[in-house]
Amino acid sequence: MKAIASFILPVLMLVARAAEPLPSWNDTETRKSIIAFVEKTATEGSSDFVPVPERIAVFDNDGTLWSEQPMYFQLAFVIDRVKALAPDHPEWKEKEPFASLLKGDAKGVAASGQKGLMELLAVTHTGMTIGEFETIVTAWLATAKHPKSGRPYTEMVFQPMVELLGYLREKGYKTFIVSGGGIEFMRPWTEKVYGIPPEQVVGSSGKLKYEMKDGKPVLTKLPEIDLIDDKEGKPVGIQSHIGRRPIFAAGNSDGDFQMLEWTTSGKGPRFGLIVHHTDAEREYAYDRDSHFGKLDKAMDEAPKRGWVLVDMKKDWATIYPEK
Amino acid sequence: MKAIASFILPVLMLVARAAEPLPSWNDTETRKSIIAFVEKTATEGSSDFVPVPERIAVFDNDGTLWSEQPMYFQLAFVIDRVKALAPDHPEWKEKEPFASLLKGDAKGVAASGQKGLMELLAVTHTGMTIGEFETIVTAWLATAKHPKSGRPYTEMVFQPMVELLGYLREKGYKTFIVSGGGIEFMRPWTEKVYGIPPEQVVGSSGKLKYEMKDGKPVLTKLPEIDLIDDKEGKPVGIQSHIGRRPIFAAGNSDGDFQMLEWTTSGKGPRFGLIVHHTDAEREYAYDRDSHFGKLDKAMDEAPKRGWVLVDMKKDWATIYPEK
Ligand SMILES: [Ca+2]
Ligand SMILES: [Ca+2]
Repeated sequence: MKAIASFILPVLMLVARAAEPLPSWNDTETRKSIIAFVEKTATEGSSDFVPVPERIAVFDNDGTLWSEQPMYFQLAFVIDRVKALAPDHPEWKEKEPFASLLKGDAKGVAASGQKGLMELLAVTHTGMTIGEFETIVTAWLATAKHPKSGRPYTEMVFQPMVELLGYLREKGYKTFIVSGGGIEFMRPWTEKVYGIPPEQVVGSSGKLKYEMKDGKPVLTKLPEIDLIDDKEGKPVGIQSHIGRRPIFAAGNSDGDFQMLEWTTSGKGPRFGLIVHHTDAEREYAYDRDSHFGKLDKAMDEAPKRGWVLVDMKKDWATIYPEK
Repeated sequence: MKAIASFILPVLMLVARAAEPLPSWNDTETRKSIIAFVEKTATEGSSDFVPVPERIAVFDNDGTLWSEQPMYFQLAFVIDRVKALAPDHPEWKEKEPFASLLKGDAKGVAASGQKGLMELLAVTHTGMTIGEFETIVTAWLATAKHPKSGRPYTEMVFQPMVELLGYLREKGYKTFIVSGGGIEFMRPWTEKVYGIPPEQVVGSSGKLKYEMKDGKPVLTKLPEIDLIDDKEGKPVGIQSHIGRRPIFAAGNSDGDFQMLEWTTSGKGPRFGLIVHHTDAEREYAYDRDSHFGKLDKAMDEAPKRGWVLVDMKKDWATIYPEK
């Protein structure tokens, strides 16, 4: 009997383990608090029960669902794209911010400021149809590699967060991305990678124009800002696209402050989560002084607002999906 | 046996009838073509099968899902709202377009043109939080009555179209409203009335501002246009909110032309539907010369584009839901 028990027990535990939510999370207070929240809001009869249509969860993307170092991945796309277009634009050799970018002079690019950034975005993100842009993004993602890991960018997503998205959906939540990144830069791949369809992606966007091209209707991307979906823009993007206040929000930087504030200051059960990048070995360690994903005020205010900080190093058993 | 058959057969027929889709539609070619399209796109193995995530259906609201005569219901809201606010604005007695509106002088209001309309929208739709606006709309709908039928406006919806929405959802379609009407004017009631949640409502919208009010975050409605979701604006609103081209579109006026064109010019199976108001007795009869919901070019082009015209009088057994 003892022999059988010693064989059966581990098997039973394995089975139980596989059925447990969030397997790539260590069994810390963070994991426990997430599960407690999701269970109480999804259990009929619970005093914190929330009807299915109100179970709205919003997630920042850069630094929350995938890495954002050594630079936002969309910025790597911009750089690669300018290089790819450069042969058709000999004038860029003399013209900022293109000249600096082509020389790999980050300081020179930075010196061109907001205006320079807008010019880079204009030539790489506008003047084509949404279909053409989707093709360009998809082709880039198929070949581009992250400089540190050598993996495709879509494999630089956080396995624990992908599990969290799935767990929430299993419990009747509708999951949305609410990102400062470009809406059309994300839509071509979020369904496959996160299980989030294009209609549940909110992001920064430019104006569009409906017009005829070679006898066919197209939507052309214009070089005019529509929404900057960051900071105060996040609650605005949420209202515009979702029309209802979320009850769960996850972010990683001060750009998510207002989204967390808007989400958690509503009535009833609310959850605010901040991914704190503490793992220099497996990912990156940064917060207050980072160029990308600066986390300062939101970290200071987290305790008094009841926002839960994920300590990546301690809370996550795995960072990226298995190859 | 004969006696039993004469009892059993009608019962069986009743059961079959109840299970059939679109019971408030007469069994005309229109109904048959809708069902044929939905079945072929939702049946695995069919050469026209469409995967669930791509089964996107978009519906205009005014004149397509509910009536729009003798005037857009949102305009009735504006008029009632100006009257309700007038005691606090004695200056409106001398100021256009308010003076004409308060005197019931439609021509005088019309004379103030686009500028006058914007002023009316500004005082009735902006300067409050989205929560306050929702309360105002909900209170108005609870008491306002349609001038002809005497029914609440939310009972002036088309029963056959409500059934079509439900039938599409049953077959794996995601249903969206894409209306020229105000997005926040529709969201408070579309879930209850149409089964369409706020995040699937696209409409004309104004800019929003995230700010603190009495120590709490609010979203304030600003008197600045964000999107006019009509004509060329409809495909733009679709891309912005849905990010994917629909395969089914329903409208009733030239304001839906571009939405129908955008939807039906994609590859694969597509369906364009136009509600033609032909029933002066049970609803209204109007098309080319109507002030609200003018249907002219879209009707002329329907045959060659394969858009199906619903002849309300012939195709619908019922117009409104039972009381
Ligand atoms: Ca971020
Ligand atoms: Ca209409």
